[in-house]
Amino acid sequence: MAHASVADIFAGKYTVGEHVTVKGWVRTRRDSKAGLSFVALHDGSCFDAIQVIALNTLENYADITRLTTSCSIIAKGKLQASEGQGQALEIDADSLEIVGWVESPDTYPMAPKRHSMEYLREHAHLRPRTNVMGAVTRVRNCLSQAIHRFYHERGYCWISTPILTASDTEGAGEMFRVSTLDMLNVPTTEQGAVDYSQDFFGKETFLTVSGQLNVETYCTAMSKVYTFGPTFRAENSNTSRHLAEFWMIEPEVAFADLADVAQLAEDMLKYVFKAVLTERADDMAFFAERIKPDAVTRLEQVISQDFVRMNYTDAIEILQNCGKKFEFPVSWGVDLSSEHERYLAEEHVGAPIIMQNYPKDIKAFYMRINDDGKTVAAMDILAPGIGEIIGGSQREERLDVFDQRLAEMGLNKEDYSWYRDLRRYGTVPHSGFGLGFERLVAYVTGMQNVRDVIPFPRTPGNASY
Amino acid sequence: MAHASVADIFAGKYTVGEHVTVKGWVRTRRDSKAGLSFVALHDGSCFDAIQVIALNTLENYADITRLTTSCSIIAKGKLQASEGQGQALEIDADSLEIVGWVESPDTYPMAPKRHSMEYLREHAHLRPRTNVMGAVTRVRNCLSQAIHRFYHERGYCWISTPILTASDTEGAGEMFRVSTLDMLNVPTTEQGAVDYSQDFFGKETFLTVSGQLNVETYCTAMSKVYTFGPTFRAENSNTSRHLAEFWMIEPEVAFADLADVAQLAEDMLKYVFKAVLTERADDMAFFAERIKPDAVTRLEQVISQDFVRMNYTDAIEILQNCGKKFEFPVSWGVDLSSEHERYLAEEHVGAPIIMQNYPKDIKAFYMRINDDGKTVAAMDILAPGIGEIIGGSQREERLDVFDQRLAEMGLNKEDYSWYRDLRRYGTVPHSGFGLGFERLVAYVTGMQNVRDVIPFPRTPGNASY
Repeated sequence: MAHASVADIFAGKYTVGEHVTVKGWVRTRRDSKAGLSFVALHDGSCFDAIQVIALNTLENYADITRLTTSCSIIAKGKLQASEGQGQALEIDADSLEIVGWVESPDTYPMAPKRHSMEYLREHAHLRPRTNVMGAVTRVRNCLSQAIHRFYHERGYCWISTPILTASDTEGAGEMFRVSTLDMLNVPTTEQGAVDYSQDFFGKETFLTVSGQLNVETYCTAMSKVYTFGPTFRAENSNTSRHLAEFWMIEPEVAFADLADVAQLAEDMLKYVFKAVLTERADDMAFFAERIKPDAVTRLEQVISQDFVRMNYTDAIEILQNCGKKFEFPVSWGVDLSSEHERYLAEEHVGAPIIMQNYPKDIKAFYMRINDDGKTVAAMDILAPGIGEIIGGSQREERLDVFDQRLAEMGLNKEDYSWYRDLRRYGTVPHSGFGLGFERLVAYVTGMQNVRDVIPFPRTPGNASY
Repeated sequence: MAHASVADIFAGKYTVGEHVTVKGWVRTRRDSKAGLSFVALHDGSCFDAIQVIALNTLENYADITRLTTSCSIIAKGKLQASEGQGQALEIDADSLEIVGWVESPDTYPMAPKRHSMEYLREHAHLRPRTNVMGAVTRVRNCLSQAIHRFYHERGYCWISTPILTASDTEGAGEMFRVSTLDMLNVPTTEQGAVDYSQDFFGKETFLTVSGQLNVETYCTAMSKVYTFGPTFRAENSNTSRHLAEFWMIEPEVAFADLADVAQLAEDMLKYVFKAVLTERADDMAFFAERIKPDAVTRLEQVISQDFVRMNYTDAIEILQNCGKKFEFPVSWGVDLSSEHERYLAEEHVGAPIIMQNYPKDIKAFYMRINDDGKTVAAMDILAPGIGEIIGGSQREERLDVFDQRLAEMGLNKEDYSWYRDLRRYGTVPHSGFGLGFERLVAYVTGMQNVRDVIPFPRTPGNASY
């Protein structure tokens, strides 16, 4: 492994004149009539490839002139200043070993031409070799590292909430069932129901849709915690914003109210955007050039702006009086739809909005009732260009109020016994939010479809690879 | 949220004489006849609680003398040097607000006495409030952060390989099925098989048992990658080392051979052990005092030792000639059992062993055949006191050899088409390993059972919460 990464070379960790070894794959090859070839080698460590100059005096030069995209090679030679366009450094090769050929280059699925995103998805095992997916992968990694760093620096503990759950508290409507029962010989009870007591976990078991309720148990002991893990929705949604399997970040903070976690969310977004602009300038320049012209500038703008706090009730008034015709009419009590959110964030305010205090009837049972008795301490963060990116709330920590809410919603107290225990034993005000990681990556990169910012997207009808 | 964490106070971020606010939970309360109470407040930020001195001149002093373990409180007061044992700082309270009482303290499940680990598991939502689970949680967090940092500093990309997979390549024997089909009305084909074309993903779908095959697709494009995510085994194993849901770290490195990733594994273990000893000295002192006397010293020892490389063939000879009687007899070709591994690591060598080059017949189809034709480039790392902690290998990158191996094992080439593509198009030598995260946490903390180092353990018959 004592070879140089392309990123380290371009970062100046080697000096001109030094001998280096690089290992990677051919991006392009160009032959010159002067008796030499230019081979662009990439290794995934950064966006750019490094140019390797192979003279026809190399013993395997005939083979070198047969190199095609994605052949794997090892080049050794002297680092020198480049006279051509592009990067300032290139390698004058002493040797260029061909490690692996590409079988029938004419039919190689990732041949160097423009492929549609749909086509790339159908070759999900080879698409990381493309410029666009390489850039997405590095930005995704940068964002995940920055998120862990952000919370770690602030004293949060990462908590791995369970993926499998037999808990009845989440509402089973859109959940995947997990089982080892023989589907052709399902055991049943005397009443004719499935006898899950014979299943692996002895109860009907699902994939989690959120770690929030679980992580509250750690919040009310460790104070500051967050999850970062996969979550699942068995929704039959074929949109550019939905995945059946996606990653979520869910911080939960004891002794914090809605304003506290709104600030936390704003700080976090700005922190990770700065990290991407600093650490992945190369990939972001590519996204700005090829995918979304304002990819860089809109992040810079969000970083420099104060997010605007707005009450739901005020937002309804703004929408009603703005003179704009919406597909879905607006009145107090309705959930805001995408067109409303985008109007407010993009046209009315021109900055991210932290929308707060929604009617309780359109929000979840665990959200804290405000003093008006009509609204809950919930927030959504709406970003220009994408809409809702974060949803959070203060949690109802008062046992009597919580029990009343459960009763109003027709939910069964016994089903929430462990969640209620957190309110029975040393209850504290606490708040948190959820951030869909793929939506964040899509927002940052400008990629249109969340299926193209996760390695192997799972959607209705698709769990290949 | 403008309050001080206990960790920050003990880290010297506030000065004696300064007024601070702390928020947390009561660990213990002791009343003095001199007309004051000592309340130990913890907030999860570090092992120790801070002592709050409440004089009987406080207006709610009568309430303060009723405080019990886990009541939530907010204390404000002056930081002062402590004259008692324990920490050097304490708070002379101006006020001590009681935020949440503990309902019927006499029956509170986490009352301050010794509880068995089994009992704590049955109260998994409250056990993070105990000393031991708080310490485990902080160490687990420290290890996960150190792992991400280790790979990030070395230029690796974190890859989220899929949790759900319809791939046939992993061997379905011990996998959980994921479905949205109605179990009481399972659709069948004309041949009488389950008609999975009607299921959510259109194919029979499982929970992943390893991200390795998937992450190889990113390794052969990005060079250095790793996974860190949940994996699943539907094994009916009720042991202290098995979970149905656990987290795994799987680095995969292009242009790396077995020796390279053996070194990577050694470096990684030493790196994360150092991080724990440095960052979580408080919790490690607790583990050494209460759980495992050599918890600290054995980590120090591993850090200072070179791991011993040993060939499987030599290990067999050592075991055969050591004069020790084993339950399972030893001969070339058998898989090493726990007693053999422990003898070698603990008695014969007294240091971690990187055992290499196992017989191909006891190892997986994807491992690279050595030149002897009998062994594969596989390794296990055996640590004194726990046995196997890491398993890895160089992967077979030669298409013809790989195809021959599949044929020998009676596996179907077509089932591995995308995996074979990586060998058809610019193949490279590459290697990787897998580390079970819970086994690592158990090893570091000295906890006897992996169920006690993950927030909500999933085992046969148990997916509560």
